[in-house]
Amino acid sequence: MSLFSRRRIYQVIEKARAGDVASKVFDVFIISLIMLNIILVILESFEDLAVKYEEIFRAFEGLSVAIFTVEILLRIYTCDLKFHMRNKFHSFFTYIISPLAIIDFLAVLPFYLPLLIPIDLRFLRILRLTRILRVLKFNRYSSSLEIIGKIIKKRRSDLLVTMFITFLLLLLASSIMYYIENDTQPESFPNIIASFWWAIATLTTVGYGDVYPVTALGKIVSGIIALLGVGLVALPTGIISSAFVEILKRKKLLRKLNTASFVEKICGIKGD
Amino acid sequence: MSLFSRRRIYQVIEKARAGDVASKVFDVFIISLIMLNIILVILESFEDLAVKYEEIFRAFEGLSVAIFTVEILLRIYTCDLKFHMRNKFHSFFTYIISPLAIIDFLAVLPFYLPLLIPIDLRFLRILRLTRILRVLKFNRYSSSLEIIGKIIKKRRSDLLVTMFITFLLLLLASSIMYYIENDTQPESFPNIIASFWWAIATLTTVGYGDVYPVTALGKIVSGIIALLGVGLVALPTGIISSAFVEILKRKKLLRKLNTASFVEKICGIKGD
Amino acid sequence: MSLFSRRRIYQVIEKARAGDVASKVFDVFIISLIMLNIILVILESFEDLAVKYEEIFRAFEGLSVAIFTVEILLRIYTCDLKFHMRNKFHSFFTYIISPLAIIDFLAVLPFYLPLLIPIDLRFLRILRLTRILRVLKFNRYSSSLEIIGKIIKKRRSDLLVTMFITFLLLLLASSIMYYIENDTQPESFPNIIASFWWAIATLTTVGYGDVYPVTALGKIVSGIIALLGVGLVALPTGIISSAFVEILKRKKLLRKLNTASFVEKICGIKGD
Amino acid sequence: MSLFSRRRIYQVIEKARAGDVASKVFDVFIISLIMLNIILVILESFEDLAVKYEEIFRAFEGLSVAIFTVEILLRIYTCDLKFHMRNKFHSFFTYIISPLAIIDFLAVLPFYLPLLIPIDLRFLRILRLTRILRVLKFNRYSSSLEIIGKIIKKRRSDLLVTMFITFLLLLLASSIMYYIENDTQPESFPNIIASFWWAIATLTTVGYGDVYPVTALGKIVSGIIALLGVGLVALPTGIISSAFVEILKRKKLLRKLNTASFVEKICGIKGD
Repeated sequence: MSLFSRRRIYQVIEKARAGDVASKVFDVFIISLIMLNIILVILESFEDLAVKYEEIFRAFEGLSVAIFTVEILLRIYTCDLKFHMRNKFHSFFTYIISPLAIIDFLAVLPFYLPLLIPIDLRFLRILRLTRILRVLKFNRYSSSLEIIGKIIKKRRSDLLVTMFITFLLLLLASSIMYYIENDTQPESFPNIIASFWWAIATLTTVGYGDVYPVTALGKIVSGIIALLGVGLVALPTGIISSAFVEILKRKKLLRKLNTASFVEKICGIKGD
Repeated sequence: MSLFSRRRIYQVIEKARAGDVASKVFDVFIISLIMLNIILVILESFEDLAVKYEEIFRAFEGLSVAIFTVEILLRIYTCDLKFHMRNKFHSFFTYIISPLAIIDFLAVLPFYLPLLIPIDLRFLRILRLTRILRVLKFNRYSSSLEIIGKIIKKRRSDLLVTMFITFLLLLLASSIMYYIENDTQPESFPNIIASFWWAIATLTTVGYGDVYPVTALGKIVSGIIALLGVGLVALPTGIISSAFVEILKRKKLLRKLNTASFVEKICGIKGD
Repeated sequence: MSLFSRRRIYQVIEKARAGDVASKVFDVFIISLIMLNIILVILESFEDLAVKYEEIFRAFEGLSVAIFTVEILLRIYTCDLKFHMRNKFHSFFTYIISPLAIIDFLAVLPFYLPLLIPIDLRFLRILRLTRILRVLKFNRYSSSLEIIGKIIKKRRSDLLVTMFITFLLLLLASSIMYYIENDTQPESFPNIIASFWWAIATLTTVGYGDVYPVTALGKIVSGIIALLGVGLVALPTGIISSAFVEILKRKKLLRKLNTASFVEKICGIKGD
Repeated sequence: MSLFSRRRIYQVIEKARAGDVASKVFDVFIISLIMLNIILVILESFEDLAVKYEEIFRAFEGLSVAIFTVEILLRIYTCDLKFHMRNKFHSFFTYIISPLAIIDFLAVLPFYLPLLIPIDLRFLRILRLTRILRVLKFNRYSSSLEIIGKIIKKRRSDLLVTMFITFLLLLLASSIMYYIENDTQPESFPNIIASFWWAIATLTTVGYGDVYPVTALGKIVSGIIALLGVGLVALPTGIISSAFVEILKRKKLLRKLNTASFVEKICGIKGD
């Protein structure tokens, strides 16, 4: 196989198969580059460092984006090998709207965007960290990630209803609180949106302490919200716990039905 | 069927059946109106907006209440088609005490009440948001909402006992704290009711930081309460988790018993 | 049966059987008295009320304690009807060390104690609320209370180990934090005991905000402790959840084995 | 058996068997010494006590370390009786890298280290508390500790993925927050690392209140993070709950399969 054939490029940029040294090197190189990018984003947030080493930061940023851009182009170039669609355009479209492609794209966007419009989106560079998930896909943690993803997806409907109830509760609580506390502390509860901030801090039991009720009625409402916050934790936990229990059971059941030994043990009719 | 027959009106204001365009339009219109109402309640809480657009707010409020009132009247007019009672009065009574009717009624009450008694109950308008639940009933999230409702109902007794134990703990903690901290910080713990506020903030782990113990003994009691707060979360979570696990199992069991294939697989006595 | 026979007294002061009016009246009377006592303890904590209605408070307190004392004496008088021991003294001893008797005794203690030693134990009066649990025993919530009690008892060993690990973690964290933060904020972390207060507030995620790290190292340790706090909630919740799941399953299994219909359905060997 | 034979020494310093008085006395002595050490570390953190009783603290410290050192030497001396390796050196190496040996070693290290390098590691003395775990191993709580350990080990992969997601979320949130709040409050959000402190306090719902957003956008991000914090608790709880449920089920199943009575009951084919 030629070194630069499209198939070979695809193999290298995708998950490394056992023994494929070039692909492994590529993976390690990309992960290292991502890590260095994250560290640099953090270091650059220190003002003195940002000023002192501005040129190094810029150079490294340019180099990184160049490499990431080439990577994206190679992925687009080989995308029909991944998706096996009817035609190239279909593969391209399927790749372009895949979550991983969007993450890759967002990771280089902050570099190219200021060339077009003058908005500072540098913080999007932190999205590069999410690219590590791509690597995670390839190792022994992938099944855990898959299970967690599957559980959240499976119970999406239950979790969304929980979120809707939570939102309803937050809106109701913040409205009531606004009418109760606005007269006494107009600076803490100036309107319902500001009061919403208090509601979230209370219901999630964060309780920063920057906004809290001072009237008797306000304290009663706040207390009820805080107690409901305990229930708020119980609902998603129950949903996710039961999903975990179910998935584990199904896994085990499948294994047992396959081997059939369990069935025979249970019924003691091995000799039938 | 006539456009304005009672049956037709009932069909339109109730859940839209597939293909019933008029009913679908009515649903979307009511949801939009509810959403607009919520947004206006929020906007009106901004003092400058409330002053500037007072007339618009008033006009929209009047229009909304008019529409909602007509809707309520239509529901009452057609309620015997919903409840199939022996007589119209019985149906009317069953409708009037149903939770959805009460929510609908409370949503327009704040407009009519000031005409009778001069109390400001405008914040009740936020109850209109709860009307969205009526819409939720009609879509694919309804089964999730039903399951959550069923679980809370089924474990009502366990949850109530948990709440009673929590209340007992709060009362005990706030009394002890009052006797401990009252001498040192009489402004933070002036009486048991005020001390109750601290107890809730601690047990639910909100911890605003407006009231906290300063004496050594107070800190020990507070620490114990905070640790019990962790257990407080564990109890309802355990109750709800187990209920979810049970409901999922029952659902699956029912499916299996129906198809009977599982039973045969388990016992291997298909040919009996 | 004579009105004042020991057996009759026992029936009246114990759980009311269906139709026993006198016993029911006694139950309601005692519950009302307990509720009034709780309310008075709370009201008395308001200084102005305590001064203004001092005599009423005193009179009611005297009356309550008199009634509660008579009740205790009657329970002791009839205790051999409850415990069926070999002799009266054995029954008396069994009663005296039972949790309910200790609660009853503690509820009147604050009145009699100052006659002997001049310590203010009035706050113990709030223990009277726990007496309501006695009533709870008699109604439909008793099984819930029993299940929760059984679960905590059954998993006592697991929960104690969790508590020990928590304590270890708290001690370790507060020691480390003392050595880190003591130099920078000697007033917030003057010694390990004070630092323990911070550790509890962090691990339980209360976070009052009266004490928090300011050094970089302290913030790192604090962050780790806060994240471990999330795990701290997960452990008891997992323990209690699984116990609930198990108890529910056992209950259902027992019912099924009794009716036997489930077994037959599963195996399809009804006609054997 | 001679009093000072290696086997006898091993028996004494290891878990006491029923009836072995010398071993029991040794266990109690070591536990008491550990407890006293912990108490002294705590007392020494009180500056006035540290100054006043400096000599007593020093003397007790010296004595404790001497005893602990002898204990370690005895454990090394008898380690081949514990590990049954091919040769003594192999046993020694296996012992030296065991967690218990490392804990024992760390517990005396703070005394010996300053003789070599001038760093104050006295706080490591608190590690002596962890030595109590060694005692726990021998009693009825050991199975609970084992189960909890087994569960955490078994679900290590799921929990690690949860931790990774949490870390990703923290990093993303703190970066976004830095870019949002840095302009308004440069002293609270000077860089991404400092902003990380806020992210942990919010996601774990501690909420000290020393750092919180003041801009509208910052409050929205903070609210989302706090709500995700609720989900953060749900994930590990679900993982651990399901593991507990599974372990309990397996335990019970094993018991049932052994007795076989359950299988016969289920299938009603006792007489086959």
